[in-house]
Amino acid sequence: MLRIGFLGPEGTFTQRAALIYTSNNPAELVGLPSIRETLLAVQHGELDLAVIPLENSLEGSVNVVLDILAWEVDLLIIDELILPISQTLMVTPGARWQDITEVFTHPQSAGQCRLFLEKQLPKAELYLKNSNAEGAQQAKKSGITAGAIGPEQAAEIFGLEVVLRDIQDKDNNFTKFVVVGKKSVHSSAGQNKTSIVFTTEHKPGSLSCILDILSLWDINLSKIESRPSRGKFGQYIFFIDIEGHMTNPDVRDALTMVKRKTTFYKFLGSYPKADID
Amino acid sequence: MLRIGFLGPEGTFTQRAALIYTSNNPAELVGLPSIRETLLAVQHGELDLAVIPLENSLEGSVNVVLDILAWEVDLLIIDELILPISQTLMVTPGARWQDITEVFTHPQSAGQCRLFLEKQLPKAELYLKNSNAEGAQQAKKSGITAGAIGPEQAAEIFGLEVVLRDIQDKDNNFTKFVVVGKKSVHSSAGQNKTSIVFTTEHKPGSLSCILDILSLWDINLSKIESRPSRGKFGQYIFFIDIEGHMTNPDVRDALTMVKRKTTFYKFLGSYPKADID
Repeated sequence: MLRIGFLGPEGTFTQRAALIYTSNNPAELVGLPSIRETLLAVQHGELDLAVIPLENSLEGSVNVVLDILAWEVDLLIIDELILPISQTLMVTPGARWQDITEVFTHPQSAGQCRLFLEKQLPKAELYLKNSNAEGAQQAKKSGITAGAIGPEQAAEIFGLEVVLRDIQDKDNNFTKFVVVGKKSVHSSAGQNKTSIVFTTEHKPGSLSCILDILSLWDINLSKIESRPSRGKFGQYIFFIDIEGHMTNPDVRDALTMVKRKTTFYKFLGSYPKADID
Repeated sequence: MLRIGFLGPEGTFTQRAALIYTSNNPAELVGLPSIRETLLAVQHGELDLAVIPLENSLEGSVNVVLDILAWEVDLLIIDELILPISQTLMVTPGARWQDITEVFTHPQSAGQCRLFLEKQLPKAELYLKNSNAEGAQQAKKSGITAGAIGPEQAAEIFGLEVVLRDIQDKDNNFTKFVVVGKKSVHSSAGQNKTSIVFTTEHKPGSLSCILDILSLWDINLSKIESRPSRGKFGQYIFFIDIEGHMTNPDVRDALTMVKRKTTFYKFLGSYPKADID
């Protein structure tokens, strides 16, 4: 049976993604305390796969995941899941949420509920935790002055009561989770996509050149994200998703050319494209 | 005398940037409790200008600033400052830093010191605060079990002792601060730059088209950042810096064309380019 890691403990959005991912293929799920430990466990062969949050439609990419995939491990994305995310406010049963003075949650959830926190709970102190599950656990421990923000299921696990649902800044809230492992997957029958990360020479037109290569081979770009390259100020590392699998000759040839025109290049995997809507 | 807001209270990196910015032109400095309140105070005319952190070379852009500049206010960047940032660990005088169990800091500082925290203080609980000054204040209150991460000057203000310097993940750490106001500034004698934000049609080649427009007018791109557009998943908003002032005919003509080819477009200001190195 596969051993699959997720950002634990029980009661996180990532656990829910891992449960959905394994619903047809039973696996042993292992909760780990941080994203870095989860990814390193796969890298070191202690786990077969990991389910990791990559990007939220409100708050953007999970920076630590991008940085680790680019610089610290050699892992490939083998699948993605896009799940609607409803942030809920939970408190000790019987407590009034308007009275809470402490809120415990993960930074991503806090970022998705920024307006709610500023407008509805301006006086409450925000404590950021490694996971929403930890947040719920801490809120339970702290009693009626505390609340937690996170997935509904955490309320049940930690004995809290959900008092408000969908408190994120926009209703339309999705998170993309990816499944990473050490081995590539074959092209599936449906639509596939490919992720890469690269840096370009620090000169005018170098990013434009990469995008032109993709157009030349008629390849659609479905995502572009930039991060500072952790080196010189003003230099960026780019994360790009394109449509198509690496086994497609156009994708292969275009990426061979991209590799040639970049100063750092890493293939992050070809995998089936998730559907939303 | 100009009234200039900064993310307060006293003892933040932003206060230091504001002091440097005003060193030749005395102004009244006003510390505000959050970035949003600081920017809104300028928008509503309660302050003339604000000094705001925009981007760090290790941790990337300050998401909340990008989102507010794009969607919530109509303000222009009139100047930028790039300062070296040394994150320091401070504790109650006499305490051993290895023994602390709580660390108080701003999320940006925490992101810059991610490896330090995981390796050197794996057991310490991380509490994220609205500012590093608040973090230092809280650490002082909590006593010998607590530490704070932030600028050295916070230790002096809040009666803590600096025990480690340069604990960020790389030595080479800079933050870009911008000065924002309601009125544009004239072209300066030195080098100028221009910032814009836009979204493109969600179809292949649309970003490439924008970059090609800039090449056509021989305009150098000095930065490109993407953020989810807070709308449909997979759609992005782009923040671009180019070299040159809006009063330069090429810049003006190229941006007129960029505006025509984008679905949302906002000019964020032309201002003197900061030097580093």
